[in-house]
Amino acid sequence: MYEVELKLQTSHDSLRETLADHGADHVDSRSQTDTYYDAPHREFAETDEALRIRHEQPAEGDAVTKLTYKGPLVEAESKTREEHETVVADETALEGVLSGLGFEPAATVEKDREFYTLDGYTITLDRVRGLGEFIEIEQETTAESVDTVREGAVDLLSALGLDPSEQIRNSYLGLLLHNDT
Amino acid sequence: MYEVELKLQTSHDSLRETLADHGADHVDSRSQTDTYYDAPHREFAETDEALRIRHEQPAEGDAVTKLTYKGPLVEAESKTREEHETVVADETALEGVLSGLGFEPAATVEKDREFYTLDGYTITLDRVRGLGEFIEIEQETTAESVDTVREGAVDLLSALGLDPSEQIRNSYLGLLLHNDT
Repeated sequence: MYEVELKLQTSHDSLRETLADHGADHVDSRSQTDTYYDAPHREFAETDEALRIRHEQPAEGDAVTKLTYKGPLVEAESKTREEHETVVADETALEGVLSGLGFEPAATVEKDREFYTLDGYTITLDRVRGLGEFIEIEQETTAESVDTVREGAVDLLSALGLDPSEQIRNSYLGLLLHNDT
Repeated sequence: MYEVELKLQTSHDSLRETLADHGADHVDSRSQTDTYYDAPHREFAETDEALRIRHEQPAEGDAVTKLTYKGPLVEAESKTREEHETVVADETALEGVLSGLGFEPAATVEKDREFYTLDGYTITLDRVRGLGEFIEIEQETTAESVDTVREGAVDLLSALGLDPSEQIRNSYLGLLLHNDT
């Protein structure tokens, strides 16, 4: 599966009301602390990969730890990547595994997220420590449908009163590391 | 924590009875399929490390996947290593993470294990595909107690009618890769 994802920086103030007007469902909220790792054998900034431990606190219930690998872009326009992710039971042990292999924590991204669904897309309102407020729109799809799904995301952003041309292609990690936006 | 572990090759035929005579408790049985990985940036055979995905099927219940890193020996006599291990929810995703990072499956070890406890030690009867039958005796301990715990393990092996001098220091992986014992 491929992940189509578009992102804009925008205040959340009027956006929640606009989403409600369009019939979006608020399905979940959670906070995430993401630790990105440097590799001992590759320069991830150059290979455009990422290795991450995500510590996730849902609105209700216990925190969950996830290990995620993101491969290089396969479709630059929509930031489409191949991705592998699994829940891991013991975060401290996972940190020990990565440390033993020579991977080192490089940067941390903390954010509060609100998730909505609309027309088959997941729309996320993110408040990122040190960066501000953002909207993300995404959908998982097959390789053949990437273009169609991306066009639908652009149309949906326009319908919500946002300007798709203001799309940010950098990750939050990239924005934090090169805080020039 | 450090893991003190001694291992001998020996038939299990009379051993179960001997263990029962000494008051050992049979606490668990399970089968394990271990896939060991090669690293893209280190020769694990030279650095004496290991990275493993363990697929474990208990006598009852669902299979469990574990990710394990074993560091180099810190105490050669008893094969004491630093170790980090965590349960992982999605084995296929974990394989994808390792593959994305350039780690490759190198060898597989399959074994059926019976676990006993006796005098604070865990005693394991292993039947390893392609190698035969073994006994392992182990205990987790602090750095300060490694010598005492190892001496206790040697005494216990003698009490069970085994010859501690026949200790095998190779891992099952090592025995399978260099099948000359």
